[in-house]
Amino acid sequence: MRLRGKKLTEEMLQRQSGLMVNEAESHKGRWAGWFGNDRPIHVELGMGKGKFISEMSALHPEVNFIGVDMYDTLIHRAVEKAFDVWKEAHDAAPPNIALVRMNIEHIGKVFADNEIERIYLNFSDPWPKKRHARRRLTHPEFLLKYLRVLNDRGEIHFKTDSRPLFEFSLNAFADMGLRMRNISLDLHAEGPAPDNVMTEYESKFFEQGINIHRCEVVVGDQALREHLQKLQKSLPEY
Amino acid sequence: MRLRGKKLTEEMLQRQSGLMVNEAESHKGRWAGWFGNDRPIHVELGMGKGKFISEMSALHPEVNFIGVDMYDTLIHRAVEKAFDVWKEAHDAAPPNIALVRMNIEHIGKVFADNEIERIYLNFSDPWPKKRHARRRLTHPEFLLKYLRVLNDRGEIHFKTDSRPLFEFSLNAFADMGLRMRNISLDLHAEGPAPDNVMTEYESKFFEQGINIHRCEVVVGDQALREHLQKLQKSLPEY
Repeated sequence: MRLRGKKLTEEMLQRQSGLMVNEAESHKGRWAGWFGNDRPIHVELGMGKGKFISEMSALHPEVNFIGVDMYDTLIHRAVEKAFDVWKEAHDAAPPNIALVRMNIEHIGKVFADNEIERIYLNFSDPWPKKRHARRRLTHPEFLLKYLRVLNDRGEIHFKTDSRPLFEFSLNAFADMGLRMRNISLDLHAEGPAPDNVMTEYESKFFEQGINIHRCEVVVGDQALREHLQKLQKSLPEY
Repeated sequence: MRLRGKKLTEEMLQRQSGLMVNEAESHKGRWAGWFGNDRPIHVELGMGKGKFISEMSALHPEVNFIGVDMYDTLIHRAVEKAFDVWKEAHDAAPPNIALVRMNIEHIGKVFADNEIERIYLNFSDPWPKKRHARRRLTHPEFLLKYLRVLNDRGEIHFKTDSRPLFEFSLNAFADMGLRMRNISLDLHAEGPAPDNVMTEYESKFFEQGINIHRCEVVVGDQALREHLQKLQKSLPEY
Protein backbone atom coordinates (compact mmCIF):
# COMPACT_ATOMS: atom_id res chain seq x y z
CA MET A 1 0.00 0.00 0.00
CA ARG A 2 1.17 3.51 -0.76
CA LEU A 3 0.23 7.04 0.16
CA ARG A 4 -1.59 8.58 -2.76
CA GLY A 5 0.92 10.28 -5.04
CA LYS A 6 3.89 9.47 -2.83
CA LYS A 7 6.25 6.57 -2.73
CA LEU A 8 7.20 5.41 0.71
CA THR A 9 10.82 6.25 1.41
CA GLU A 10 12.98 3.94 3.48
CA GLU A 11 12.62 6.35 6.42
CA MET A 12 8.85 6.44 6.12
CA LEU A 13 8.68 2.66 5.99
CA GLN A 14 10.58 2.51 9.24
CA ARG A 15 8.17 4.94 10.91
CA GLN A 16 5.22 2.98 9.65
CA SER A 17 6.51 -0.24 11.06
CA GLY A 18 7.09 1.41 14.42
CA LEU A 19 3.54 2.70 14.92
CA MET A 20 1.32 0.50 12.76
CA VAL A 21 0.33 -2.66 14.56
CA ASN A 22 -0.24 -5.74 12.43
CA GLU A 23 -2.18 -8.70 13.76
CA ALA A 24 -3.65 -6.51 16.49
CA GLU A 25 -5.67 -9.43 17.84
CA SER A 26 -2.49 -11.02 19.09
CA HIS A 27 -2.09 -8.08 21.50
CA LYS A 28 -5.50 -8.51 23.11
CA GLY A 29 -5.04 -8.25 26.88
CA ARG A 30 -1.38 -7.35 26.39
CA TRP A 31 -1.41 -3.77 25.16
CA ALA A 32 0.47 -2.62 28.25
CA GLY A 33 3.22 -4.93 27.05
CA TRP A 34 3.20 -3.38 23.59
CA PHE A 35 3.61 0.11 25.07
CA GLY A 36 6.07 -1.11 27.71
CA ASN A 37 4.15 0.57 30.55
CA ASP A 38 0.73 0.39 32.19
CA ARG A 39 -0.49 3.91 31.55
CA PRO A 40 -4.18 4.32 30.75
CA ILE A 41 -5.14 3.53 27.17
CA HIS A 42 -7.35 5.88 25.15
CA VAL A 43 -8.71 4.64 21.84
CA GLU A 44 -10.03 6.78 19.01
CA LEU A 45 -12.49 4.82 16.90
CA GLY A 46 -12.37 6.26 13.40
CA MET A 47 -9.31 8.47 13.64
CA GLY A 48 -9.21 9.48 9.96
CA LYS A 49 -5.95 11.20 9.07
CA GLY A 50 -4.87 11.27 12.70
CA LYS A 51 -4.73 14.99 13.59
CA PHE A 52 -6.71 14.55 16.81
CA ILE A 53 -4.90 11.51 18.14
CA SER A 54 -1.47 12.90 17.21
CA GLU A 55 -2.08 16.19 18.99
CA MET A 56 -3.66 14.46 21.98
CA SER A 57 -0.68 12.14 22.30
CA ALA A 58 1.72 15.07 22.28
CA LEU A 59 -0.36 16.94 24.88
CA HIS A 60 -0.75 13.88 27.10
CA PRO A 61 2.45 11.82 27.19
CA GLU A 62 1.08 10.19 30.38
CA VAL A 63 -1.55 8.37 28.29
CA ASN A 64 -1.19 5.69 25.62
CA PHE A 65 -3.24 6.30 22.51
CA ILE A 66 -4.50 3.78 19.98
CA GLY A 67 -5.97 5.06 16.74
CA VAL A 68 -8.31 2.79 14.83
CA ASP A 69 -9.53 3.05 11.26
CA MET A 70 -10.44 0.82 8.37
CA TYR A 71 -7.96 1.77 5.65
CA ASP A 72 -4.21 1.40 5.27
CA THR A 73 -3.95 4.79 3.57
CA LEU A 74 -5.43 6.48 6.64
CA ILE A 75 -3.07 4.58 8.93
CA HIS A 76 -0.10 5.68 6.80
CA ARG A 77 -1.16 9.31 6.91
CA ALA A 78 -1.74 9.14 10.65
CA VAL A 79 1.76 7.75 11.19
CA GLU A 80 3.26 10.66 9.27
CA LYS A 81 1.06 13.11 11.15
CA ALA A 82 2.07 11.66 14.52
CA PHE A 83 5.77 11.99 13.65
CA ASP A 84 5.27 15.56 12.43
CA VAL A 85 3.37 16.63 15.53
CA TRP A 86 5.82 15.01 17.92
CA LYS A 87 8.78 16.44 16.04
CA GLU A 88 7.39 19.94 16.45
CA ALA A 89 6.14 19.53 20.02
CA HIS A 90 8.91 17.48 21.59
CA ASP A 91 11.57 17.03 18.88
CA ALA A 92 11.15 13.30 19.41
CA ALA A 93 9.47 10.26 17.89
CA PRO A 94 6.00 9.46 19.32
CA PRO A 95 6.40 6.89 22.12
CA ASN A 96 2.71 6.59 23.03
CA ILE A 97 0.78 5.89 19.83
CA ALA A 98 -0.28 2.69 18.17
CA LEU A 99 -2.33 2.61 14.99
CA VAL A 100 -4.56 -0.29 14.15
CA ARG A 101 -6.45 -1.13 10.99
CA MET A 102 -9.60 -2.95 12.01
CA ASN A 103 -13.36 -3.04 11.71
CA ILE A 104 -14.76 -1.47 14.86
CA GLU A 105 -17.31 -4.26 15.12
CA HIS A 106 -14.45 -6.49 16.17
CA ILE A 107 -13.25 -4.27 19.01
CA GLY A 108 -13.80 -7.18 21.41
CA LYS A 109 -11.25 -9.26 19.51
CA VAL A 110 -8.53 -6.63 19.86
CA PHE A 111 -9.10 -5.49 23.45
CA ALA A 112 -9.74 -7.55 26.55
CA ASP A 113 -12.46 -6.70 29.09
CA ASN A 114 -11.47 -3.61 31.11
CA GLU A 115 -8.36 -3.03 29.02
CA ILE A 116 -9.04 0.55 27.99
CA GLU A 117 -10.03 3.69 29.85
CA ARG A 118 -11.47 5.99 27.29
CA ILE A 119 -13.01 5.85 23.84
CA TYR A 120 -13.14 8.85 21.54
CA LEU A 121 -15.79 9.01 18.86
CA ASN A 122 -15.17 12.04 16.66
CA PHE A 123 -17.44 12.92 13.77
CA SER A 124 -18.49 9.35 13.16
CA ASP A 125 -20.50 8.62 10.05
CA PRO A 126 -24.11 9.64 10.89
CA TRP A 127 -25.64 6.94 8.67
CA PRO A 128 -28.78 9.04 8.22
CA LYS A 129 -31.04 6.33 6.83
CA LYS A 130 -33.05 4.59 9.48
CA ARG A 131 -32.28 1.16 8.05
CA HIS A 132 -28.59 1.84 8.64
CA ALA A 133 -29.08 2.80 12.30
CA ARG A 134 -27.14 -0.25 13.46
CA ARG A 135 -24.02 1.03 11.73
CA ARG A 136 -23.95 4.19 13.83
CA LEU A 137 -21.08 3.94 16.29
CA THR A 138 -23.34 4.99 19.16
CA HIS A 139 -25.94 2.31 18.50
CA PRO A 140 -26.60 0.29 21.67
CA GLU A 141 -25.06 -2.79 20.05
CA PHE A 142 -21.78 -0.91 19.70
CA LEU A 143 -22.14 0.66 23.13
CA LEU A 144 -22.45 -2.76 24.72
CA LYS A 145 -19.19 -3.79 23.07
CA TYR A 146 -17.49 -0.63 24.35
CA LEU A 147 -18.76 -1.27 27.88
CA ARG A 148 -16.99 -4.60 27.94
CA VAL A 149 -13.57 -3.28 27.01
CA LEU A 150 -13.76 -0.09 29.10
CA ASN A 151 -12.56 -0.24 32.69
CA ASP A 152 -14.17 1.09 35.88
CA ARG A 153 -12.98 4.61 35.16
CA GLY A 154 -14.18 4.24 31.59
CA GLU A 155 -15.57 7.16 29.62
CA ILE A 156 -16.77 7.75 26.09
CA HIS A 157 -16.11 11.19 24.63
CA PHE A 158 -18.27 11.88 21.63
CA LYS A 159 -18.50 14.83 19.29
CA THR A 160 -20.27 15.38 16.02
CA ASP A 161 -21.60 18.09 13.75
CA SER A 162 -24.65 15.94 12.96
CA ARG A 163 -27.72 16.97 14.94
CA PRO A 164 -29.61 13.78 14.03
CA LEU A 165 -26.70 11.58 15.10
CA PHE A 166 -26.32 13.51 18.32
CA GLU A 167 -30.02 13.19 19.08
CA PHE A 168 -29.89 9.46 18.35
CA SER A 169 -26.85 9.08 20.56
CA LEU A 170 -28.26 11.00 23.54
CA ASN A 171 -31.29 8.73 23.44
CA ALA A 172 -29.14 5.62 23.16
CA PHE A 173 -27.05 6.70 26.18
CA ALA A 174 -30.19 7.62 28.14
CA ASP A 175 -32.08 4.44 27.27
CA MET A 176 -29.12 2.38 28.44
CA GLY A 177 -29.04 4.26 31.72
CA LEU A 178 -25.57 5.57 31.02
CA ARG A 179 -24.60 8.72 32.84
CA MET A 180 -23.88 11.76 30.68
CA ARG A 181 -21.78 14.78 31.50
CA ASN A 182 -20.67 18.05 29.90
CA ILE A 183 -23.31 17.99 27.19
CA SER A 184 -22.77 20.75 24.66
CA LEU A 185 -25.03 21.66 21.75
CA ASP A 186 -22.64 24.32 20.46
CA LEU A 187 -19.16 23.51 21.65
CA HIS A 188 -17.48 26.60 20.24
CA ALA A 189 -20.28 29.06 21.04
CA GLU A 190 -17.84 31.35 22.84
CA GLY A 191 -14.81 30.79 20.61
CA PRO A 192 -12.72 27.61 20.39
CA ALA A 193 -13.50 25.50 23.45
CA PRO A 194 -10.59 25.33 25.89
CA ASP A 195 -8.77 21.98 26.29
CA ASN A 196 -10.41 20.75 23.11
CA VAL A 197 -8.27 19.34 20.33
CA MET A 198 -9.97 19.80 16.97
CA THR A 199 -10.10 17.09 14.34
CA GLU A 200 -9.59 17.92 10.64
CA TYR A 201 -13.36 18.06 10.12
CA GLU A 202 -13.90 20.12 13.20
CA SER A 203 -11.45 22.86 12.14
CA LYS A 204 -13.29 23.15 8.85
CA PHE A 205 -16.73 23.20 10.52
CA PHE A 206 -15.53 25.75 13.03
CA GLU A 207 -14.39 28.07 10.25
CA GLN A 208 -17.76 27.66 8.54
CA GLY A 209 -19.66 28.39 11.75
CA ILE A 210 -21.25 24.93 11.83
CA ASN A 211 -22.00 24.05 15.42
CA ILE A 212 -20.51 21.03 17.09
CA HIS A 213 -22.29 18.81 19.62
CA ARG A 214 -20.32 17.06 22.33
CA CYS A 215 -20.97 14.86 25.30
CA GLU A 216 -19.14 12.61 27.71
CA VAL A 217 -20.49 9.32 28.97
CA VAL A 218 -19.31 7.98 32.28
CA VAL A 219 -19.43 4.25 32.06
CA GLY A 220 -19.34 3.56 35.78
CA ASP A 221 -18.57 0.40 37.60
CA GLN A 222 -18.52 -3.21 36.58
CA ALA A 223 -21.75 -4.07 38.39
CA LEU A 224 -23.66 -1.52 36.37
CA ARG A 225 -22.12 -2.78 33.18
CA GLU A 226 -23.03 -6.38 33.91
CA HIS A 227 -26.54 -5.21 34.63
CA LEU A 228 -26.60 -3.45 31.28
CA GLN A 229 -25.42 -6.52 29.43
CA LYS A 230 -28.37 -8.38 30.89
CA LEU A 231 -30.67 -5.52 30.09
CA GLN A 232 -29.80 -5.76 26.43
CA LYS A 233 -32.94 -7.59 25.46
CA SER A 234 -35.31 -5.09 27.06
CA LEU A 235 -34.03 -2.11 25.13
CA PRO A 236 -36.43 -0.28 22.82
CA GLU A 237 -36.15 -0.88 19.08
CA TYR A 238 -33.57 1.24 17.28
CA MET B 1 -58.46 42.95 37.27
CA ARG B 2 -59.62 43.09 33.68
CA LEU B 3 -58.67 41.66 30.34
CA ARG B 4 -56.88 44.27 28.34
CA GLY B 5 -59.43 46.22 26.27
CA LYS B 6 -62.35 44.11 27.43
CA LYS B 7 -64.70 44.46 30.34
CA LEU B 8 -65.58 41.24 32.06
CA THR B 9 -69.20 40.35 31.42
CA GLU B 10 -71.29 38.64 34.07
CA GLU B 11 -70.92 35.36 32.16
CA MET B 12 -67.16 35.74 31.98
CA LEU B 13 -66.95 36.47 35.67
CA GLN B 14 -68.78 33.27 36.40
CA ARG B 15 -66.38 31.27 34.23
CA GLN B 16 -63.43 32.89 35.91
CA SER B 17 -64.68 32.01 39.36
CA GLY B 18 -65.19 28.41 38.27
CA LEU B 19 -61.66 27.76 37.05
CA MET B 20 -59.45 30.25 38.83
CA VAL B 21 -58.40 29.02 42.23
CA ASN B 22 -57.84 31.61 44.93
CA GLU B 23 -55.86 30.82 48.02
CA ALA B 24 -54.36 27.80 46.30
CA GLU B 25 -52.26 26.97 49.35
CA SER B 26 -55.41 25.94 51.18
CA HIS B 27 -55.80 23.07 48.69
CA LYS B 28 -52.34 21.62 49.32
CA GLY B 29 -52.74 17.85 49.70
CA ARG B 30 -56.41 18.12 48.75
CA TRP B 31 -56.45 18.75 45.02
CA ALA B 32 -58.29 15.50 44.40
CA GLY B 33 -61.03 17.01 46.53
CA TRP B 34 -61.08 20.18 44.45
CA PHE B 35 -61.51 18.14 41.25
CA GLY B 36 -63.90 15.70 42.90
CA ASN B 37 -61.95 12.65 41.70
CA ASP B 38 -58.51 11.10 42.09
CA ARG B 39 -57.34 11.19 38.52
CA PRO B 40 -53.67 11.99 37.91
CA ILE B 41 -52.78 15.66 38.10
CA HIS B 42 -50.62 17.31 35.44
CA VAL B 43 -49.31 20.79 36.10
CA GLU B 44 -48.05 23.26 33.52
CA LEU B 45 -45.61 25.69 35.07
CA GLY B 46 -45.83 28.93 33.09
CA MET B 47 -48.90 28.28 30.98
CA GLY B 48 -49.05 31.75 29.37
CA LYS B 49 -52.36 32.29 27.59
CA GLY B 50 -53.40 28.69 28.12
CA LYS B 51 -53.54 27.21 24.61
CA PHE B 52 -51.50 24.13 25.52
CA ILE B 53 -53.25 23.28 28.76
CA SER B 54 -56.71 23.91 27.29
CA GLU B 55 -56.11 21.64 24.32
CA MET B 56 -54.45 18.99 26.48
CA SER B 57 -57.41 19.00 28.86
CA ALA B 58 -59.83 18.51 25.99
CA LEU B 59 -57.73 15.68 24.55
CA HIS B 60 -57.25 13.98 27.93
CA PRO B 61 -60.43 14.18 30.02
CA GLU B 62 -58.99 11.33 32.12
CA VAL B 63 -56.39 13.71 33.54
CA ASN B 64 -56.76 16.78 35.76
CA PHE B 65 -54.78 19.79 34.65
CA ILE B 66 -53.54 22.70 36.69
CA GLY B 67 -52.13 25.72 34.89
CA VAL B 68 -49.81 28.00 36.77
CA ASP B 69 -48.67 31.51 35.94
CA MET B 70 -47.76 34.73 37.65
CA TYR B 71 -50.29 37.25 36.32
CA ASP B 72 -54.05 37.62 36.66
CA THR B 73 -54.39 38.73 33.05
CA LEU B 74 -52.87 35.45 31.86
CA ILE B 75 -55.16 33.46 34.14
CA HIS B 76 -58.16 35.33 32.75
CA ARG B 77 -57.16 34.66 29.17
CA ALA B 78 -56.50 31.00 29.94
CA VAL B 79 -59.99 30.65 31.43
CA GLU B 80 -61.56 32.05 28.27
CA LYS B 81 -59.33 29.82 26.13
CA ALA B 82 -60.28 26.73 28.12
CA PHE B 83 -64.00 27.46 27.70
CA ASP B 84 -63.56 28.10 23.96
CA VAL B 85 -61.60 24.89 23.39
CA TRP B 86 -64.01 22.75 25.42
CA LYS B 87 -67.02 24.34 23.73
CA GLU B 88 -65.63 23.39 20.34
CA ALA B 89 -64.31 19.95 21.29
CA HIS B 90 -67.05 18.69 23.61
CA ASP B 91 -69.74 21.40 23.65
CA ALA B 92 -69.29 21.47 27.40
CA ALA B 93 -67.60 23.49 30.13
CA PRO B 94 -64.12 22.28 31.11
CA PRO B 95 -64.42 19.93 34.11
CA ASN B 96 -60.71 19.13 34.50
CA ILE B 97 -58.84 22.42 34.66
CA ALA B 98 -57.79 24.59 37.54
CA LEU B 99 -55.79 27.79 37.07
CA VAL B 100 -53.53 29.11 39.77
CA ARG B 101 -51.69 32.40 40.06
CA MET B 102 -48.51 31.75 41.95
CA ASN B 103 -44.76 32.10 41.97
CA ILE B 104 -43.30 28.75 40.91
CA GLU B 105 -40.73 29.01 43.67
CA HIS B 106 -43.55 28.28 46.07
CA ILE B 107 -44.70 25.09 44.38
CA GLY B 108 -44.09 23.22 47.62
CA LYS B 109 -46.67 25.39 49.40
CA VAL B 110 -49.39 24.56 46.91
CA PHE B 111 -48.77 20.86 46.35
CA ALA B 112 -48.05 18.14 48.88
CA ASP B 113 -45.29 15.55 48.42
CA ASN B 114 -46.27 13.03 45.71
CA GLU B 115 -49.44 14.94 44.84
CA ILE B 116 -48.81 15.39 41.13
CA GLU B 117 -47.84 13.06 38.33
CA ARG B 118 -46.47 15.25 35.60
CA ILE B 119 -44.98 18.69 35.18
CA TYR B 120 -44.92 20.48 31.83
CA LEU B 121 -42.33 23.14 31.21
CA ASN B 122 -43.00 24.80 27.86
CA PHE B 123 -40.80 27.56 26.50
CA SER B 124 -39.73 28.73 29.91
CA ASP B 125 -37.76 31.96 30.09
CA PRO B 126 -34.15 31.03 29.16
CA TRP B 127 -32.63 33.68 31.46
CA PRO B 128 -29.52 33.80 29.26
CA LYS B 129 -27.25 35.64 31.67
CA LYS B 130 -25.16 33.36 33.81
CA ARG B 131 -25.91 35.32 36.95
CA HIS B 132 -29.62 34.56 36.43
CA ALA B 133 -29.09 30.79 36.07
CA ARG B 134 -30.97 30.13 39.31
CA ARG B 135 -34.13 31.59 37.81
CA ARG B 136 -34.20 28.98 35.03
CA LEU B 137 -37.03 26.57 35.72
CA THR B 138 -34.73 23.60 35.11
CA HIS B 139 -32.11 24.73 37.60
CA PRO B 140 -31.36 21.92 40.10
CA GLU B 141 -32.90 24.00 42.90
CA PHE B 142 -36.21 24.00 41.05
CA LEU B 143 -35.81 20.36 40.04
CA LEU B 144 -35.42 19.35 43.68
CA LYS B 145 -38.71 21.10 44.46
CA TYR B 146 -40.42 19.30 41.58
CA LEU B 147 -39.08 15.94 42.76
CA ARG B 148 -40.81 16.40 46.10
CA VAL B 149 -44.27 17.04 44.68
CA LEU B 150 -44.07 14.46 41.88
CA ASN B 151 -45.20 10.93 42.63
CA ASP B 152 -43.55 7.58 41.79
CA ARG B 153 -44.82 7.73 38.23
CA GLY B 154 -43.68 11.32 37.99
CA GLU B 155 -42.36 12.81 34.78
CA ILE B 156 -41.22 16.21 33.61
CA HIS B 157 -41.93 17.09 29.98
CA PHE B 158 -39.84 19.96 28.78
CA LYS B 159 -39.69 21.82 25.49
CA THR B 160 -37.96 24.97 24.39
CA ASP B 161 -36.71 26.80 21.33
CA SER B 162 -33.65 27.95 23.28
CA ARG B 163 -30.57 25.89 22.56
CA PRO B 164 -28.65 27.31 25.52
CA LEU B 165 -31.52 26.59 27.90
CA PHE B 166 -31.88 23.08 26.53
CA GLU B 167 -28.16 22.44 26.91
CA PHE B 168 -28.26 23.77 30.47
CA SER B 169 -31.26 21.59 31.25
CA LEU B 170 -29.82 18.37 29.82
CA ASN B 171 -26.76 18.87 32.00
CA ALA B 172 -28.88 19.62 35.05
CA PHE B 173 -30.93 16.45 34.50
CA ALA B 174 -27.78 14.40 33.87
CA ASP B 175 -25.85 15.81 36.84
CA MET B 176 -28.77 14.94 39.11
CA GLY B 177 -28.81 11.40 37.79
CA LEU B 178 -32.32 11.84 36.42
CA ARG B 179 -33.29 9.52 33.62
CA MET B 180 -34.09 11.14 30.28
CA ARG B 181 -36.22 9.82 27.47
CA ASN B 182 -37.38 10.86 24.00
CA ILE B 183 -34.80 13.57 23.59
CA SER B 184 -35.42 15.61 20.47
CA LEU B 185 -33.20 18.35 19.06
CA ASP B 186 -35.64 19.19 16.26
CA LEU B 187 -39.10 18.10 17.30
CA HIS B 188 -40.83 18.95 14.05
CA ALA B 189 -38.05 17.80 11.72
CA GLU B 190 -40.47 15.64 9.77
CA GLY B 191 -43.54 17.89 10.01
CA PRO B 192 -45.60 18.57 13.14
CA ALA B 193 -44.73 15.90 15.71
CA PRO B 194 -47.62 13.47 16.32
CA ASP B 195 -49.37 13.61 19.70
CA ASN B 196 -47.77 16.97 20.37
CA VAL B 197 -49.94 19.92 21.34
CA MET B 198 -48.30 23.18 20.33
CA THR B 199 -48.18 26.22 22.57
CA GLU B 200 -48.76 29.72 21.16
CA TYR B 201 -45.01 30.28 20.90
CA GLU B 202 -44.44 26.90 19.36
CA SER B 203 -46.93 27.47 16.50
CA LYS B 204 -45.15 30.69 15.66
CA PHE B 205 -41.69 29.10 15.84
CA PHE B 206 -42.86 26.17 13.74
CA GLU B 207 -44.07 28.54 11.00
CA GLN B 208 -40.74 30.34 11.11
CA GLY B 209 -38.79 27.08 10.88
CA ILE B 210 -37.16 27.57 14.28
CA ASN B 211 -36.35 24.20 15.71
CA ILE B 212 -37.78 23.01 18.99
CA HIS B 213 -35.94 20.89 21.57
CA ARG B 214 -37.84 18.49 23.76
CA CYS B 215 -37.11 15.91 26.41
CA GLU B 216 -38.88 13.87 29.04
CA VAL B 217 -37.47 13.18 32.47
CA VAL B 218 -38.57 10.10 34.34
CA VAL B 219 -38.40 10.93 38.00
CA GLY B 220 -38.38 7.38 39.24
CA ASP B 221 -39.08 6.05 42.66
CA GLN B 222 -39.11 7.61 46.09
CA ALA B 223 -35.84 6.01 47.13
CA LEU B 224 -34.01 7.63 44.26
CA ARG B 225 -35.60 10.95 45.04
CA GLU B 226 -34.60 10.81 48.69
CA HIS B 227 -31.11 9.96 47.58
CA LEU B 228 -31.15 12.99 45.30
CA GLN B 229 -32.33 15.29 48.05
CA LYS B 230 -29.31 14.18 50.08
CA LEU B 231 -27.04 14.56 47.09
CA GLN B 232 -27.99 18.20 46.74
CA LYS B 233 -24.84 19.52 48.35
CA SER B 234 -22.47 17.59 46.11
CA LEU B 235 -23.84 19.01 42.87
CA PRO B 236 -21.49 21.02 40.66
CA GLU B 237 -21.83 24.81 40.65
CA TYR B 238 -24.49 26.19 38.30
